[in-house]
Amino acid sequence: MSNERLQALRLELNKRQIQAFLVPRCDEYQNEYVPAAAERLAWLSGFTGSAGMAAIATNLAALFVDGRYTLQAVQQVDTESIEQQPLGAEDIANWLCQVLIPGDVVGYDPLLHTEAGLAPIIGKLNEHNIQLRAQAHNPIDTIWEDQPPKPCGSALPHSESFTGETSSSKRQRIAKLLAQKNQDALLLANPEVCAWLFNIRGNDIPHLPVALTMGLLYRDGSATLYLAEQATNPKLQQHLGNAVTLVHQVQEIFIAAQQKQCTRVWADPLLANCWTLQHLRAMDVELLLERDPVTAIKACKNPVELAGSRAAHIRDGVALCEFLAELPQAIQQDDFGELQAVQLLRGKREQQQGFCDDSFESISGYCGNGAIVHYRVTPESSLPMHPRGIYLIDSGGQYPDGTTDVTRTVALGDFPKSAKEHFTRVLKGHISIATLRFPIGTCGEQIDAFARRALWDLGLDYAHGTGHGVGSFLSVHEGPQRIGKASTKVPLQAGMIVSNEPGFYRTGEYGIRIENLIFIKESREYAGFLEFETLTLAPIDHQLIDPGLLTSEELHWLNNYHRRVRETLTPLVSPQTTAWLNAATQPLEQ
Amino acid sequence: MSNERLQALRLELNKRQIQAFLVPRCDEYQNEYVPAAAERLAWLSGFTGSAGMAAIATNLAALFVDGRYTLQAVQQVDTESIEQQPLGAEDIANWLCQVLIPGDVVGYDPLLHTEAGLAPIIGKLNEHNIQLRAQAHNPIDTIWEDQPPKPCGSALPHSESFTGETSSSKRQRIAKLLAQKNQDALLLANPEVCAWLFNIRGNDIPHLPVALTMGLLYRDGSATLYLAEQATNPKLQQHLGNAVTLVHQVQEIFIAAQQKQCTRVWADPLLANCWTLQHLRAMDVELLLERDPVTAIKACKNPVELAGSRAAHIRDGVALCEFLAELPQAIQQDDFGELQAVQLLRGKREQQQGFCDDSFESISGYCGNGAIVHYRVTPESSLPMHPRGIYLIDSGGQYPDGTTDVTRTVALGDFPKSAKEHFTRVLKGHISIATLRFPIGTCGEQIDAFARRALWDLGLDYAHGTGHGVGSFLSVHEGPQRIGKASTKVPLQAGMIVSNEPGFYRTGEYGIRIENLIFIKESREYAGFLEFETLTLAPIDHQLIDPGLLTSEELHWLNNYHRRVRETLTPLVSPQTTAWLNAATQPLEQ
Repeated sequence: MSNERLQALRLELNKRQIQAFLVPRCDEYQNEYVPAAAERLAWLSGFTGSAGMAAIATNLAALFVDGRYTLQAVQQVDTESIEQQPLGAEDIANWLCQVLIPGDVVGYDPLLHTEAGLAPIIGKLNEHNIQLRAQAHNPIDTIWEDQPPKPCGSALPHSESFTGETSSSKRQRIAKLLAQKNQDALLLANPEVCAWLFNIRGNDIPHLPVALTMGLLYRDGSATLYLAEQATNPKLQQHLGNAVTLVHQVQEIFIAAQQKQCTRVWADPLLANCWTLQHLRAMDVELLLERDPVTAIKACKNPVELAGSRAAHIRDGVALCEFLAELPQAIQQDDFGELQAVQLLRGKREQQQGFCDDSFESISGYCGNGAIVHYRVTPESSLPMHPRGIYLIDSGGQYPDGTTDVTRTVALGDFPKSAKEHFTRVLKGHISIATLRFPIGTCGEQIDAFARRALWDLGLDYAHGTGHGVGSFLSVHEGPQRIGKASTKVPLQAGMIVSNEPGFYRTGEYGIRIENLIFIKESREYAGFLEFETLTLAPIDHQLIDPGLLTSEELHWLNNYHRRVRETLTPLVSPQTTAWLNAATQPLEQ
Repeated sequence: MSNERLQALRLELNKRQIQAFLVPRCDEYQNEYVPAAAERLAWLSGFTGSAGMAAIATNLAALFVDGRYTLQAVQQVDTESIEQQPLGAEDIANWLCQVLIPGDVVGYDPLLHTEAGLAPIIGKLNEHNIQLRAQAHNPIDTIWEDQPPKPCGSALPHSESFTGETSSSKRQRIAKLLAQKNQDALLLANPEVCAWLFNIRGNDIPHLPVALTMGLLYRDGSATLYLAEQATNPKLQQHLGNAVTLVHQVQEIFIAAQQKQCTRVWADPLLANCWTLQHLRAMDVELLLERDPVTAIKACKNPVELAGSRAAHIRDGVALCEFLAELPQAIQQDDFGELQAVQLLRGKREQQQGFCDDSFESISGYCGNGAIVHYRVTPESSLPMHPRGIYLIDSGGQYPDGTTDVTRTVALGDFPKSAKEHFTRVLKGHISIATLRFPIGTCGEQIDAFARRALWDLGLDYAHGTGHGVGSFLSVHEGPQRIGKASTKVPLQAGMIVSNEPGFYRTGEYGIRIENLIFIKESREYAGFLEFETLTLAPIDHQLIDPGLLTSEELHWLNNYHRRVRETLTPLVSPQTTAWLNAATQPLEQ
């Protein structure tokens, strides 16, 4: 099938007289999650990973993926017609230079790339006299007959009881920054930025509760917001008020900018697509290409957002406990496997007040499947589960008051002996982060090793980050902060929510990860210092803990945490879960 | 006095028709330590710190220093005639732009600046139509009547029994890198680079056992080396062999490059001065401005260098023990203070085989003076010492087989109660680094927080790095590796020597620092992992340790370390030190 599609694409490229075309896994907003209409890479190649790029030339084709997806890509893609390459601007440029000849033209859809992403490719292609040319209409859209329509569900106001600040107040705050930088407008290039700034939400994208919008914020705090006509409604218009002008064609944003006589526009080079920047430049606008100020501000949650997150985590904890309590019986059924586990948990979340959606596609990995860090269960891969071995479930929910993300690893019966030591060392890393006090100004890369040291002591490690930022009823993966080995130079600040998720993976045997969301708060006792507070509430499986490996401080943290879980959730769980919760949260002794 | 000198300089600037002049604390090799002839900043302003820059304009003058030196500069400099400003390219440029008018000219000595350092200043001055103009002869040298002569002591071969590799082998290794980068030559811009590459040492600079040299290494492994004629000798010429051509005028390096038909030269933008790069550019040489490959290679010591460092640390440990053992009696003398302590320790080091020099100016801080991180004792500042309070001594030696750097903090009698907890927490940080195992690829900034956590727990910290690289009978401060908060992106590698020196400082009361040198080695047990081994051998003062704050693992490390110190040094110390050493290294119990 992918061969027919490749052939159709090549015919189309031939018509356009271009010798190659780039197909990123991306929509025009640089979102991690994209609507079905933007799943061009999956449609063309079969590859469904969350990051990747294909380059299709006349006779050859390549799929560029990072280390997470090399195995998955081999399984999903016809490697006879599409070879696999590592994902990096240099790799893509090198491949194109090898496959093409001077004078050739590479097409790209300017809506789907950033200038920052293309720059290193352009540099290399120029050296070889190969040209990169924007395509006004994506050739895949031309040949994709049953391409789903662009989503345009209703955009709805997000109540101040959840956001804690009016859109008007937020716009005034950002407008001040525009004045400081002497800019006429800020390009709101991304639906998440718009969702936060205008206090609106939608359901155009799986897992990400936003409407597909972009816009401009002006120096006086007024704004132009693009939103499909079908997505608008009187409630929304009333909410936005007079200072926000709605337009229903993207191009009207540029007309509005001209009417407002904007000559200097601030645009985030990592968020704005080429098409938008090319339009602004064509209007003689002077661009300030710096990180969007909204990203840093929305990362620091206000007290209302933090209270909402606490409340959402209580309901999410109830759902997870109901699931974990039922799991031992569920796996007695013949046809119960990884896929059914996801459905069972989803059902529990759906019973919680306000639940909208999973915050990402759940990772449900039994035994060896748990060791595949970015595993996504499919009907074909789903292993049947039995009362033995280790099971890892990483999932989360979108609630209007907060976004959750939690991983628990549980023993379903007998398990490999080594797992207990590994689990306990992962737990030590988790506790080391949870209990850390650190000075203002500290970045994630400076504390990441605390999560790893107990594993390093045995010559072990895990090949992923320790923590990512989390939005407020927004993306479960939100910048700019991160806890990981890579340099961010972004200080952790009070109000930020991050995950705390060390892990350990033994190929073919089991995966272990313990993930709670934590938020950063000022120390009451020590001026100039920050601390974490744990939001997630769910038992950590005692069966997998060797108390002899824990210090008395670590044991104290664990028992305190379990007491809090028990006291908070017992009044809220179903009668059949109470006993399980009570047993699962009893204090451990050395 | 400084006023007269300022006046003389201004007369000279007037003659040259320049409106301002930059005076960095620097010589032409960008060394941390400079010969007396290059102490122009100190001569002009009185400021003797190791980093700083003055800008002298027609009516105004400013001294730019970093946070370490603000206090010292106020004490040393006539603030009526020279104002103090923070040290940063932007600060310097802003000051010049405020003081000067369009059309003015700022002079600089191209030997004393790097292009990388000047670039941001030039950018800002250009905006204001102020010009930066190189001065062929430094105007301070014109007016400084009793300027010391440039040093040119004998350069001597450094035996292969210390270096573990011939110069020829080193040159072939680097030459291969030149071929890979398609470069004709590497500019050897710095005496440390030359000292390592040619296996030569000298004594032209205090604390740094090098001769003032620079040179060029060619793609075939041959080289041109500049060295003052008085510094050469038959032994050296024989050692260098036929492949190395000695020249006695710096300019002859450029002539040699022309004769060798060098058209592409690799130069380190952080080491090469403007004058050299301007010369090379004038010869139509194409410059590759990238970090010098020698720096990274010399950082990783070979087995012979490591064995030498071990041996030097044993002798240095003997000297320090003799000093510490004698200290309690010494302070009974009326006229014994911080300065006399430095002299006493220097005397002990001088008794050790091979001792050449202190590796830096000792920090000898009693009570409140110990809390001044970069304190240097002078006859005026030297506090008399008594049998009470806390004393910090940070010092090191240059030996042909190794460079040492050690800090011990000792109680001389009663001391403030809080010091015990602070000292023990500094010790916990020290042990946390010393016992760390970490994967290959880990950088200093990723492990620095282990040294701080026990202090962070109390809302405390220290305002300096945790570790710097150390050379092999070379600079006590050597890159590129570092353990600190700042991002280096330089992985710690096997063979690197670094210091491990957490501290804590209570203004006006005491300073605490525990510093050992450690080196990095591959883990025997765990492939892909690195570990530290401690080189420094000297007791850590029991009187300042609260064993109740140590874990059993920490106590185990301490007792093991002290056993090693006792067993290694007892056969080597004087009879009167044996009893002290034995008592000072007895196991502690909880």
